[in-house]
Amino acid sequence: GIMEIPSAKKETFDPIVEGLKKIYKEKIRPLEEMFKFDGFHSPLLNDSDIEAKPMVLLLGQYSTGKTSFVKYLLGRDFPGAHIGPEPTTDRFMAIMHGKEERRTPGNALSVETDKPFRGLSKFGTMFLQRFESSESPAPLLEHLTFIDTPGVLSGEKQRIARGYDFISVIEWFAEKADMILLLFDAYKLDISDEFKRTIEALRGNDDKIRVVLNKADQINTQQLMRVYGALMWALGKVVRTPEVMRVYIGSFWNEPYRIQENAKLFQAEQQDLLRDLQALPRLAAVRKCNEMVKRAKMCRIHAFIIAHLRKQMPSVFGQKSAQAELIKNLEQEFSRIQIATQMPAGDFPDAERFRERLALHDLKKFPKLDKKMLEVLDQVLQQDLPLLLRRYAQIADESPQGVLP
Amino acid sequence: GIMEIPSAKKETFDPIVEGLKKIYKEKIRPLEEMFKFDGFHSPLLNDSDIEAKPMVLLLGQYSTGKTSFVKYLLGRDFPGAHIGPEPTTDRFMAIMHGKEERRTPGNALSVETDKPFRGLSKFGTMFLQRFESSESPAPLLEHLTFIDTPGVLSGEKQRIARGYDFISVIEWFAEKADMILLLFDAYKLDISDEFKRTIEALRGNDDKIRVVLNKADQINTQQLMRVYGALMWALGKVVRTPEVMRVYIGSFWNEPYRIQENAKLFQAEQQDLLRDLQALPRLAAVRKCNEMVKRAKMCRIHAFIIAHLRKQMPSVFGQKSAQAELIKNLEQEFSRIQIATQMPAGDFPDAERFRERLALHDLKKFPKLDKKMLEVLDQVLQQDLPLLLRRYAQIADESPQGVLP
Ligand SMILES: Nc1ncnc2c1ncn2[C@@H]1O[C@H](COP(=O)(O)OP(=O)(O)OP(=O)(O)O)[C@@H](O)[C@H]1O
Ligand SMILES: Nc1ncnc2c1ncn2[C@@H]1O[C@H](COP(=O)(O)OP(=O)(O)OP(=O)(O)O)[C@@H](O)[C@H]1O
Ligand SMILES: [Mg+2]
Ligand SMILES: [Mg+2]
Repeated sequence: GIMEIPSAKKETFDPIVEGLKKIYKEKIRPLEEMFKFDGFHSPLLNDSDIEAKPMVLLLGQYSTGKTSFVKYLLGRDFPGAHIGPEPTTDRFMAIMHGKEERRTPGNALSVETDKPFRGLSKFGTMFLQRFESSESPAPLLEHLTFIDTPGVLSGEKQRIARGYDFISVIEWFAEKADMILLLFDAYKLDISDEFKRTIEALRGNDDKIRVVLNKADQINTQQLMRVYGALMWALGKVVRTPEVMRVYIGSFWNEPYRIQENAKLFQAEQQDLLRDLQALPRLAAVRKCNEMVKRAKMCRIHAFIIAHLRKQMPSVFGQKSAQAELIKNLEQEFSRIQIATQMPAGDFPDAERFRERLALHDLKKFPKLDKKMLEVLDQVLQQDLPLLLRRYAQIADESPQGVLP
Repeated sequence: GIMEIPSAKKETFDPIVEGLKKIYKEKIRPLEEMFKFDGFHSPLLNDSDIEAKPMVLLLGQYSTGKTSFVKYLLGRDFPGAHIGPEPTTDRFMAIMHGKEERRTPGNALSVETDKPFRGLSKFGTMFLQRFESSESPAPLLEHLTFIDTPGVLSGEKQRIARGYDFISVIEWFAEKADMILLLFDAYKLDISDEFKRTIEALRGNDDKIRVVLNKADQINTQQLMRVYGALMWALGKVVRTPEVMRVYIGSFWNEPYRIQENAKLFQAEQQDLLRDLQALPRLAAVRKCNEMVKRAKMCRIHAFIIAHLRKQMPSVFGQKSAQAELIKNLEQEFSRIQIATQMPAGDFPDAERFRERLALHDLKKFPKLDKKMLEVLDQVLQQDLPLLLRRYAQIADESPQGVLP
């Protein structure tokens, strides 16, 4: 493969992932289960969610070279890869590591507990029939998972032909992804309204977006400047962030450049892209730590809220109306907890949403707050996670460029 | 000069300008005077307004190379040109043709009837003291006038230090200009809020805007791509039009390129810019014809409106209240004229504005509509101007590229 990550370093960030799994399973999840965290905030995590490799989501109109791009990075074909001039890739494909070549259909994938795709079942059978994994022993896949997608079509075709909600599926993957690559064809630049809508659906994940201006060797320098300028002009209008989006300009397949004028530029750009991809495992480890910190904090606040509300409940009569009253005055109860515990208001969940969820639960059925478990959680926040982050900094120090060759 | 326009062709579009002057003076202006067109719509025109050479307005933050750019195009220094690293140009400068080198201060310029700058007096003495003309016998100036401007400063400096309304002055020139060139320094790209506001003031004239990414030879290709991308990204957000703005990338002065990597690109871009500048006289002639058509149409409608309103006035008593009543029901009167004359409603002036202006006039003092003069105006619209445009097409046909060498 063009992008070898030396296997000696391949496990570099595994101790952190292992640490996170242990901390979560032993010290956070029990509290989450007790106070039904998943009924209020987000699903409980499994090992596979924490282990999941950094994910690179590929998006683009059809024939921009998404599938060829993955093949180029892997340095090999992968099972189920179809490359061609017409709209070819007709499904979402998770390109993952496996000892043997194997394809697994979406219906099976969505129930495998060791894969991070269980959340996809909500998009229905029509979608799962258009989703599969492609496993192969490409070394790069030990560190990254790619999500190849069907090219965005224009107009009605997009909505009618698919039979599932393409935009919502993209949103799901964008949320999980560590990098979102938008591919454009320099030779035939086209930013359809549908693709604009797809980009808009990425809002909130803008910091993950990078752009590939592919097939840039097919045109001369002046044409390339016009195309690249038009691309940036249009992107500036669609993406709301003031920070300029990084665009990698080049030709990402294994053929010689057609026009040589900018060979040096393309090579430098390809190097930059590889370096940024190689940095993902390191960045993902930090991100996972930070997310775990956030989750532990939210779990702590959640436990306090539930315990506080539960305490107000009468022991025998009028429980229903008491709970209704508490739900009604939720903002006020939140304020009281904030004052009592000195936890910042900004960390609290949205009261309106919490109110809706709470209506589905019986406060009386929650246990009392276990002091011991709370101490354990405080320890997670004050010691365990900071220690893990420090450990990470050590690893990063020893190999300053992370997994770079 | 780098941009010679052969003098044999220099008079190419003069017959059209001469024709326009004659038509206006003999057939349109008399009617305008009679019905006080200038009190309702726009000032009466002099020969100099119609003769005025295509104007190129240069804008940019300080030190982006505006003054050097003009010097480069003229192939020579011009009187009053100051070039340097600090904010140097401290005034608006109209760089025009003259047999002798000469500078004329703004106060004098603003009263010269053979120059198109009389409208500038409204910006006050503080501005006129910061405005001058620089005449010299550079051949290019026989065809184009350049307006060099002080660099846009950032923040408070811009507003406080100047003593006149910079943005309004820019708007005035933008309205008159045939091309507006925004200069950026590739080596030190910076788009201050003040400059954004300046660009926003150009709204309505967006089709005239072109961009020069200057000093592009000071950085390597990858850096240039980042800078150019950032520029387009930012411009896309500021300029509302969907059409991508044309950017000329190069180094517009008479020094050799510092970094040679993109010499070929820069040369091609410089050629394109020169070609587009050379096309201005031709485009300006067409524009003048089209504007005269619009003006004649507006004059016709104006005469009909005034004559129609005048006819409703009582001959002796209650004139004041009758006029007030007419002003009040102006929309209704407009509709009646539209029905009677079959003139499209879209061509009519804004009723609210017209109402304000009308309040300053005494309807009874206007003359009756002279049938003869109206016939002459119809002739202008049906014969004279179409003939002139056909004549233009002939000239353009004989020399398909207009004044191109
Ligand atoms: N860098 C490149 N330069 C020129 N042509 C390319 C390049 N990469 C791919 N192609 C060609 O473009 C066409 C489309 O490629 P590919 O199937 O990889 O695109 P895709 O984005 O995956 O399309 P789809 O959305 O239909 O799946 C193919 O003919 C391929 O050979
Ligand atoms: N193409 C170029 N490449 C590199 N340097 C240049 C170029 N053009 C001009 N310069 C230098 O940049 C500086 C500013 O030039 P100049 O005075 O022409 O800019 P300006 O935009 O007119 O500035 P101001 O707004 O202050 O009048 C000068 O030192 C000049 O020599
Ligand atoms: Mg594909
Ligand atoms: Mg200057």
